[in-house]
Amino acid sequence: MSNDHRYSEAERAAIYRAIAERRDMRHFLEDPVDPAVLKHLFVAAHQAPSVGLMQPWRFIRITDTKRRSAMAKLVDEERKRTADALGERGETFMRLKVEGIRQCGELLVAALSDDREKHIFGRRTLPEMDLASVACAIQNLWLAARAEGLGMGWVSLFDPKALAELLAMPDGSRPLAILCLGHVAKFYPAPMLVQEGWTEEQPLQELLFHNTWGNAEE
Amino acid sequence: MSNDHRYSEAERAAIYRAIAERRDMRHFLEDPVDPAVLKHLFVAAHQAPSVGLMQPWRFIRITDTKRRSAMAKLVDEERKRTADALGERGETFMRLKVEGIRQCGELLVAALSDDREKHIFGRRTLPEMDLASVACAIQNLWLAARAEGLGMGWVSLFDPKALAELLAMPDGSRPLAILCLGHVAKFYPAPMLVQEGWTEEQPLQELLFHNTWGNAEE
Repeated sequence: MSNDHRYSEAERAAIYRAIAERRDMRHFLEDPVDPAVLKHLFVAAHQAPSVGLMQPWRFIRITDTKRRSAMAKLVDEERKRTADALGERGETFMRLKVEGIRQCGELLVAALSDDREKHIFGRRTLPEMDLASVACAIQNLWLAARAEGLGMGWVSLFDPKALAELLAMPDGSRPLAILCLGHVAKFYPAPMLVQEGWTEEQPLQELLFHNTWGNAEE
Repeated sequence: MSNDHRYSEAERAAIYRAIAERRDMRHFLEDPVDPAVLKHLFVAAHQAPSVGLMQPWRFIRITDTKRRSAMAKLVDEERKRTADALGERGETFMRLKVEGIRQCGELLVAALSDDREKHIFGRRTLPEMDLASVACAIQNLWLAARAEGLGMGWVSLFDPKALAELLAMPDGSRPLAILCLGHVAKFYPAPMLVQEGWTEEQPLQELLFHNTWGNAEE
């Protein structure tokens, strides 16, 4: 059928391009991010969907160098604990670059707000939908950043309680992401964890079912 | 600084347009979705970031009309339970259209895979990062759908155990979204829950902090 709501071919191509070229970056240049661009990215994040329109996302922009160092230390500590938990793969893991906190032009934290209990719409049986909303906001920011030529990396290697304390976060809130954002020399042509041989990608057709789980979609 | 990685102005505008115009749709036309377009949308979803590249998303395409009816019934049951839980707002809630399961051209379920325990990278302290990855995949699909002129609605009003059973999902997997996808007469100019007076949007500046929680970013 004809569809008046469809974007032009060039517009669609731009959107598919950003989706395909977005990477989880760990290597950054130290050049600053244009504040006007940063603002566009926050607006894009804030336009995300949210369950019952609760908009549970909170963003903290870190410019204080002492806090930046403290955050890098937190991640380094968790990195070692993760390596221990990984057992025989721990050594390989320790050779991976897992964050760019000290180099990136902008350092952000994305968190769940406090005081979420009163939001029941869409969450009575699936309370974790608030977290899904924050993830959608981060994905918006990520795609917009890629279009702006900026790399972003989502770091989840930290103790959330320790990070919450460092940023004076209230009870009930929860940090979900340390976001390293900034200029990059180049974007990885494929996911870094594939390039580094950590893992392989699964083909889409194995993750796509028809009517019931495990029943392949043609 | 100059930035060779930045997309053209037209490309950037297209991406910001999709982000701004994406809506959580509940009203659909019954026209079918072009299978080639649907495939593009799944590819876009599958290009999402994921913690440790675990790609925990699974999609189930529902074409069986009996299953579609059963899913509508599940949502209707949860809708009533949510109304009860909402207390004095329950009546207003019951007047909202919360899903388009019976009308939409394509009905999908997005879920977390089973067997996620072995994925420790990025999840030792934040196990819910797998859910964030699925949400990013859904947001990719949502933005690509908007560019294709298709509406999508994320329905989370269901009992996850009952839905898992209906779709023969294995232990350890978890359905997160019933996704209604399809042609629409028009996209809501603003979020439907704002149009219907259910809630108001929060201004971005109240959700954006500087160095510590509650400290306003200029």
